[in-house]
Amino acid sequence: MRGAPYVLMKRTPMDGAECLLRTLLANEVDLCLMNPGTSEMRFVAALDRVPRMRGVLGLFEGVCSGAADGYARMTGKPAATLFHLGPGLANALANLHNARKARSPVVNIVGQHSTQHLDHDAPLTADIEAFARPVSGWVRTLERAEAMGEAASAAVAAAMGPPAGVATLIVPADFSWSEAGDPGCPAPRPCRPLPPNERVRLVACALRSGQAVGLLLSGSALQARGLRAAARLRAATGVRVFADRYAARMARGAGIPAAERIPYFPEPAQALLAGFERLILVEAHPPVSFFGYPGLRSSLAPAGCAFDVLASEDEDGAAALEWLAQEVGAPSSESAASGAPRPDLPGAGPLTAAAIGKTVGALLPEAAIVSDETVSSNERIWPHLAGARSHDHLPITGGAIGQGLPVALGAALACPGRKVVALEADGSAMYTLQSLWTMARERLDVTTVILSNRRYRILDIEMQRTGGAAVGPRAGQMIDLGRPDPDWMKLAEGFGVPAARAATAEDFIREFAASMREPGPSLIEAALTQEA
Amino acid sequence: MRGAPYVLMKRTPMDGAECLLRTLLANEVDLCLMNPGTSEMRFVAALDRVPRMRGVLGLFEGVCSGAADGYARMTGKPAATLFHLGPGLANALANLHNARKARSPVVNIVGQHSTQHLDHDAPLTADIEAFARPVSGWVRTLERAEAMGEAASAAVAAAMGPPAGVATLIVPADFSWSEAGDPGCPAPRPCRPLPPNERVRLVACALRSGQAVGLLLSGSALQARGLRAAARLRAATGVRVFADRYAARMARGAGIPAAERIPYFPEPAQALLAGFERLILVEAHPPVSFFGYPGLRSSLAPAGCAFDVLASEDEDGAAALEWLAQEVGAPSSESAASGAPRPDLPGAGPLTAAAIGKTVGALLPEAAIVSDETVSSNERIWPHLAGARSHDHLPITGGAIGQGLPVALGAALACPGRKVVALEADGSAMYTLQSLWTMARERLDVTTVILSNRRYRILDIEMQRTGGAAVGPRAGQMIDLGRPDPDWMKLAEGFGVPAARAATAEDFIREFAASMREPGPSLIEAALTQEA
Repeated sequence: MRGAPYVLMKRTPMDGAECLLRTLLANEVDLCLMNPGTSEMRFVAALDRVPRMRGVLGLFEGVCSGAADGYARMTGKPAATLFHLGPGLANALANLHNARKARSPVVNIVGQHSTQHLDHDAPLTADIEAFARPVSGWVRTLERAEAMGEAASAAVAAAMGPPAGVATLIVPADFSWSEAGDPGCPAPRPCRPLPPNERVRLVACALRSGQAVGLLLSGSALQARGLRAAARLRAATGVRVFADRYAARMARGAGIPAAERIPYFPEPAQALLAGFERLILVEAHPPVSFFGYPGLRSSLAPAGCAFDVLASEDEDGAAALEWLAQEVGAPSSESAASGAPRPDLPGAGPLTAAAIGKTVGALLPEAAIVSDETVSSNERIWPHLAGARSHDHLPITGGAIGQGLPVALGAALACPGRKVVALEADGSAMYTLQSLWTMARERLDVTTVILSNRRYRILDIEMQRTGGAAVGPRAGQMIDLGRPDPDWMKLAEGFGVPAARAATAEDFIREFAASMREPGPSLIEAALTQEA
Repeated sequence: MRGAPYVLMKRTPMDGAECLLRTLLANEVDLCLMNPGTSEMRFVAALDRVPRMRGVLGLFEGVCSGAADGYARMTGKPAATLFHLGPGLANALANLHNARKARSPVVNIVGQHSTQHLDHDAPLTADIEAFARPVSGWVRTLERAEAMGEAASAAVAAAMGPPAGVATLIVPADFSWSEAGDPGCPAPRPCRPLPPNERVRLVACALRSGQAVGLLLSGSALQARGLRAAARLRAATGVRVFADRYAARMARGAGIPAAERIPYFPEPAQALLAGFERLILVEAHPPVSFFGYPGLRSSLAPAGCAFDVLASEDEDGAAALEWLAQEVGAPSSESAASGAPRPDLPGAGPLTAAAIGKTVGALLPEAAIVSDETVSSNERIWPHLAGARSHDHLPITGGAIGQGLPVALGAALACPGRKVVALEADGSAMYTLQSLWTMARERLDVTTVILSNRRYRILDIEMQRTGGAAVGPRAGQMIDLGRPDPDWMKLAEGFGVPAARAATAEDFIREFAASMREPGPSLIEAALTQEA
């Protein structure tokens, strides 16, 4: 009997791979999005000994990294990824760039050759740390098998921040197959502090100063709580409330107070902000144009505009707004919600971006998630979603197109029971179309709408903005996605996703309504009629 | 009249984009594989003023970088690529890794934000140089518009080497739209020197020493000229001739002397090389296992084996072999060609990898190019191509799967009039399947064979080799490409490539024979029956 406690306490020997998975679980990381190879086989094998870790396979690494971003935006916690050596990580980088800009916590696990193999410059040898650094706030190559638990906990802690971001742990294969130490302890969860008292008072003074003042919200301040507090401030002081266009997530629709989104092009953005003497930043940075153009300023705020930071991106912007509302004596009104009415369904006729916006706005179910990677059609869809049922809107954050489908996939993994709608430009969808297969395998409730204009339409506009004249025929070919026209129905069906094509508004209403009723993945190719 | 020469000589002002294209043309770089964005629009616009530059659009950057690799392997000169900022380059990196390992010259042009925009940390801002460095032998961010011509010539020179490789020129957008100086002068073409006299004599002594000696060929030594010289040496001295498995290109088939390819797994490779006391390296490095495994050596040569470098990778290995043959008094025999007979077509029955190998070996036309990214089926196909009509074989060089389709695409752009056959594993093809669209648009003569076993089959084997026991059900899911089965006919047709499916040997013979007769792109999904 005396021996029993000892026996119970005795550590079962486990390999490094199992130690890693158990450490992730101890840190509440229970999803691993993977595209593994030989050097990661021990991690894959360990899934059968650690059944609480969910493995989800992607056929391309950018699917996994984008899904980890979408998952983090909806849960606030990281998923793990598992990639094969340098080239596997390289394929994930574009969407890790987006995750970095979204401030999404992600724990990258990247296999490395076994330590004794590294000296030999084998074909797959590459500088993995160098690939990882531009997108990662934290990079570490595991030094010895016994450190696995501690290193994995450190990776989760680094991903959670502050600042939240991408943490990359590189694991030589021999440390996954060697005996490891105990799993790591749970890393402490960061809390987002309130800004200091003095700062809130100063901002309150600015609001009462009589100057033209705007609030610019980003990060967690764009969820419902922050938007409600901002609306109280608007009601009390007349302050204008703006939303960072590239924030990771924004609550919107019925019952959610509105914020004015900064336009994409610098001219309307600068016009919107003209005359403002002071912008109060809530988890936001001073607004900047997406691209620079000949003869135009990059800053979107007027010259001489002052910036006050109410909350940095590591502080609790929503709580800061509530405190500020109290400080200025704002009423605790609930009448501040957006008054935009639910749009009517469009009439029969050609299929325009506006008709798609109206249809989605009219039919979106309560608590849906919209992953939005529309580009040239964006401004004609966006207004119609203001009156939809309340939903979360996930835009592109870092400008690396090919994130919309993976983000939708990750959001669906994060939020079973909520309908996910991916609004996708046909050019953008092409980079990570393999996402459709994982949606089919995992039977995720994602409706993908491909806005098919068979053109990098935005580039026609950008070509003229950067000072090129009319697009010549040879240049035009490089912007043209037709000849041949991709057939999105066949592509979707090739990946196991049921698909339909809509050529008119009534087609689209019928197909979109059906997909809102039916759970599971589906795709609608919306053959756009170009609007004047 | 006097003014005329001055008028003729007067430089027409041109923007940086046009200057870049003209400099590339002056350097005989006349193909640009691109996936451009806003910051590259001036380069695209300049295509209409510089019609000799051929622009080819890819829908994903890895298609372009892999195609540049295939093009370089077949022409010995670089294509240019054009990518959009850091994330665009990031998507190209995996196939640039392969290009680096293939020692392929590639000139990457990467757009950057305009200089005044860079301070603002816009969404697409990233450390482009950091992304570029792990795959590039040369990286430069253009400092001013006037340096465009000089910098572009320097990029070509760096790509051509020695050593040949990837050169990355990063161009801020304002330098493409500003007025530039004159186009750059053509960079001098490197010549591959012969090794020094003394080295050839020493190797000749080694061949006569009575030791067990092998020749290991890579690089240009694996084209017909080098293989013929090696065969003369074999005839004269009995030396064994081995081929680097991961060399960029190898001549093979009727009329081409054979070399023994080093096997993939370390045990058969070490068995093949057992007993060798000395290996003579011709543009090759000491052979190394693809992966490291528990308890196995990474080096494939026996312990204590000596290595002599006959020619480094920057020297002319074929000429060195000819010189060595003369030095040892080898007869100038032409009887050294491979005696492998053309295989017979397989009999009717289930579709195995061997049946595919026999069919391809029997029907491949003269001077075909085989881009080979088969993995678990490779060893059962390879022997049957020995007796095919003479062809070039392009294997995977850097282990980053997803190169086979792009390399086929680039080879077809390089060699109009030659049939290209891409032998593709279904898992590997998935990473860059967008290649099919560019094949369709450019009407390239590429037959793609998808070896469909709906599994990362090699990982079943690797799982056991790295010490995992039997693959459990949860691990098995991560290796399984089925549920749902990708439908390659639909995927190909979705990209505009005609497709067929073969489930039996007779199906495959019929479809492959038809595709050898018909020019243009096509795809055959070969539903494999697993061999015992």
